[in-house]
Amino acid sequence: MTAISRKTIYPLLSKRVNLAPRTATCSYVRRKFSGEPTGPRVVSQIPGPESLNLLNQLDKIQNTDAVAFFADYDKSCGNYIVDADGNIMLDMLTQMASIPLGYNHPRLMETMRKPENWTPFVNRPSLGVSPPSDWTQLLKKDLLSVAPSGMRQVQTMSCGSCTIENGLKAMFIAHERRRRSGAPPTPEEMSSCMCNIPPGSADITILSFSGASHGWTLGAQSVSHANWTQKLDLKSMRWPVATFPSLRYPLEDHEKENRQEEQRSLSEVADKIERQMKDGRPVAGCCVEPVQSAGGDNHASPWFFQELQKICKQNGVALLMDEIQTGCGSTGKFWAHEHFSLPEPPDIVAFGKKMLTGGFYYRENMRPQEAFRIFNTWVGDPSKMVLLRAVLNTIREERLLNLVSSTGVHLLKGLREIELKYPAFIRNARGLGTLCSVDFPNNSERDKVIQGLRNRGVNTGPSGDRSLRLRPSLIFTKVHSDIFLEVLESTVKDIMA
Amino acid sequence: MTAISRKTIYPLLSKRVNLAPRTATCSYVRRKFSGEPTGPRVVSQIPGPESLNLLNQLDKIQNTDAVAFFADYDKSCGNYIVDADGNIMLDMLTQMASIPLGYNHPRLMETMRKPENWTPFVNRPSLGVSPPSDWTQLLKKDLLSVAPSGMRQVQTMSCGSCTIENGLKAMFIAHERRRRSGAPPTPEEMSSCMCNIPPGSADITILSFSGASHGWTLGAQSVSHANWTQKLDLKSMRWPVATFPSLRYPLEDHEKENRQEEQRSLSEVADKIERQMKDGRPVAGCCVEPVQSAGGDNHASPWFFQELQKICKQNGVALLMDEIQTGCGSTGKFWAHEHFSLPEPPDIVAFGKKMLTGGFYYRENMRPQEAFRIFNTWVGDPSKMVLLRAVLNTIREERLLNLVSSTGVHLLKGLREIELKYPAFIRNARGLGTLCSVDFPNNSERDKVIQGLRNRGVNTGPSGDRSLRLRPSLIFTKVHSDIFLEVLESTVKDIMA
Repeated sequence: MTAISRKTIYPLLSKRVNLAPRTATCSYVRRKFSGEPTGPRVVSQIPGPESLNLLNQLDKIQNTDAVAFFADYDKSCGNYIVDADGNIMLDMLTQMASIPLGYNHPRLMETMRKPENWTPFVNRPSLGVSPPSDWTQLLKKDLLSVAPSGMRQVQTMSCGSCTIENGLKAMFIAHERRRRSGAPPTPEEMSSCMCNIPPGSADITILSFSGASHGWTLGAQSVSHANWTQKLDLKSMRWPVATFPSLRYPLEDHEKENRQEEQRSLSEVADKIERQMKDGRPVAGCCVEPVQSAGGDNHASPWFFQELQKICKQNGVALLMDEIQTGCGSTGKFWAHEHFSLPEPPDIVAFGKKMLTGGFYYRENMRPQEAFRIFNTWVGDPSKMVLLRAVLNTIREERLLNLVSSTGVHLLKGLREIELKYPAFIRNARGLGTLCSVDFPNNSERDKVIQGLRNRGVNTGPSGDRSLRLRPSLIFTKVHSDIFLEVLESTVKDIMA
Repeated sequence: MTAISRKTIYPLLSKRVNLAPRTATCSYVRRKFSGEPTGPRVVSQIPGPESLNLLNQLDKIQNTDAVAFFADYDKSCGNYIVDADGNIMLDMLTQMASIPLGYNHPRLMETMRKPENWTPFVNRPSLGVSPPSDWTQLLKKDLLSVAPSGMRQVQTMSCGSCTIENGLKAMFIAHERRRRSGAPPTPEEMSSCMCNIPPGSADITILSFSGASHGWTLGAQSVSHANWTQKLDLKSMRWPVATFPSLRYPLEDHEKENRQEEQRSLSEVADKIERQMKDGRPVAGCCVEPVQSAGGDNHASPWFFQELQKICKQNGVALLMDEIQTGCGSTGKFWAHEHFSLPEPPDIVAFGKKMLTGGFYYRENMRPQEAFRIFNTWVGDPSKMVLLRAVLNTIREERLLNLVSSTGVHLLKGLREIELKYPAFIRNARGLGTLCSVDFPNNSERDKVIQGLRNRGVNTGPSGDRSLRLRPSLIFTKVHSDIFLEVLESTVKDIMA
């Protein structure tokens, strides 16, 4: 932890109040919650004494090594999270990018207030067996209203890892149905799968990318390659892994060399698919994130994704676009892959986090043909859909995608300005919307920056080895962005001093 | 679907009102919700016209082959579920055994009514990173207050499948830490795991049982062997599977031959563990359900589980007791494995369903030593804990475990009486508490019974090939039991006629 005295923090923070909104471009800025703090307020090191006390208690019950601080969610408001010690932080991590509208948003509180909304909270249904009468309407009016263009099928799930697991399952099932030319499974297939052996348990594979992070369960971690703590000691699937393009930023200044690097990655993809086919362990599906959001905020160009889809299509490989972290507006479009102008939708688009419910959209060819293929006790949670409705209506009414786009441009411009001033320390500013990142010289300097930012009242997180993960909510404005940029610059200055 | 005219149903149902409580043994019976129907009321075939209409609409969006009917959760009350057509069914399936206190329980509605409870619903935290200030207290006062004896560590998860996946992970991690004698991982282990290869991705295994059902994700389905629809076409782990004892019921009348069969199964377990060790793919853990609750309601004796634990301990194999379906009181004890008088707790006890939150208790040896080993975005949901508190308080205050025990005895006695009358058609009545089952001659007759019961206003489900799955809520009384028994007998009579 970087030692920063309260004295060095307070003069800085006192400036915050001067940063009142001046250039409002969105109705949200004018009508933001009355209770939102005007800036961070830091009263202790973070974690402070009360967080440390609570940490000590929790550590008796479970491993707490990942805990940054304890939060007071009652007091948190809008873009600001309040910790157990009363520190007020501008939250640009937002619970691993999973809070869409900031804390205690009035629309969500209003949703809780209405007794007619309580039924799904106290009677969680087994959606695959006895869904509520209004389930189809909830799916249509809410989830399908924001479906990626051309996608009309949707399956809810409880969390992100289950979403990916079931996305993988859907690709396997579709692959094997095609292998059988649509014929029903043979008795041998049905009996052999009960013992986990072929032909019923098919020896088919999923292609994933270095730096990917798709989840934490055994299947999902098998297609993840971002961090050893996520993978060590686990039984993993021996599936092909292609090297994700390692591009130079800004992308627009390095088009030619980046194209070569993307071509290299695509050739590797094609080679691996071919080799797997020859080895009799064909690739059923390919998982990719529009931006590798935990493995280093690695971007690739629209061309890369267009070509990847082409290769997949040519080889009968389904394409799963993992939008769990990038979806629900944080790139300025509702789905990040809309930036890629794909000629047709991916086969599966996975969502979670800001969507409040996990799940995935899928094309008709991915639809299971029998009962109980994509199934579990709950397969989702209608109470999350009740809250999602309020989120989606707010995004539409407040035109939050416009806000994210304009704030994102402002944020990225600010990051590039800082980068120009401290080129030895901070570089590769990049982003889509407010899903932004910058790199530091190494892991240790990056972690110092995160701790320094936190002790100055800005909460962020790491991505990959040396990148900063910026994941503000959808109500993050230029005003908040300016607060962050100023704190970032002073943190960088202090660390370099 | 068995054709039953409304005329044949109504005379039967009119008797229901005569079955008023006379032998109240529990405060719940005296103070049951005023709104609970006095008996089933069937106004259409099930699914009825409105359910079929809704099914048709939902089928445009996703596969609906597992849907039995659409439910009106606003109108459902206590032990009765109301469907979209207004049919009132005594619910003995309760959303795959996941509704603890029946529908719209006043204590749960009261919980929703309090504004001080709303924060966790609208601000779902990343519990591993910034838990709420009261998180330790919630874990202590609620989850740990019902922890299996001797267990003091707990990890929450979002759903049952994620719970099992992370239970498997905890066993793998503990196994490999022991292999390293507690030393930190080597650089080779850390780098190789990123490519899914040894030594970092260990080639270790989990032993499971035929007939087991632990979940639906790739790891969880690999240890499940109950139904081909759960497994076909998926890439599965080639892990050892032992044959679960196939016992004769009632257990107390067949002790000697059952003991032999259990010994056979235990020998197989020991043999497989030894063989795996010789093959260099050691068994890190063993998953078992106290009652195989989806694969045929298969029971084994306390002796079997005691010996299984002994074998596991002797071989350094962790024991995971999957109480997702059996826990939270439905066997008359809070955890079903309490019936087994194990000399020490299992290494992991998994919960879900009626507990509203997924998760697992674990012994200190299963605790991960590094950050981000057992992790995901949410790792649970405090809003479910708010509701769980009301559930646990109600179980205690209403002494519902006593109710489940006495109702269970009554229900099992009634099943055995019917069995004696129709020995060619219904047999093997068995159960712990109200977690009961009976067998029918085959799959098709069993399914006829389920449909027949449903069309007479009792909702149940299948378990395994030919068993009936009875999973009432914890507020199911002798009165409800009598209603069920009468409907069952008349259904059996009709099918046999």
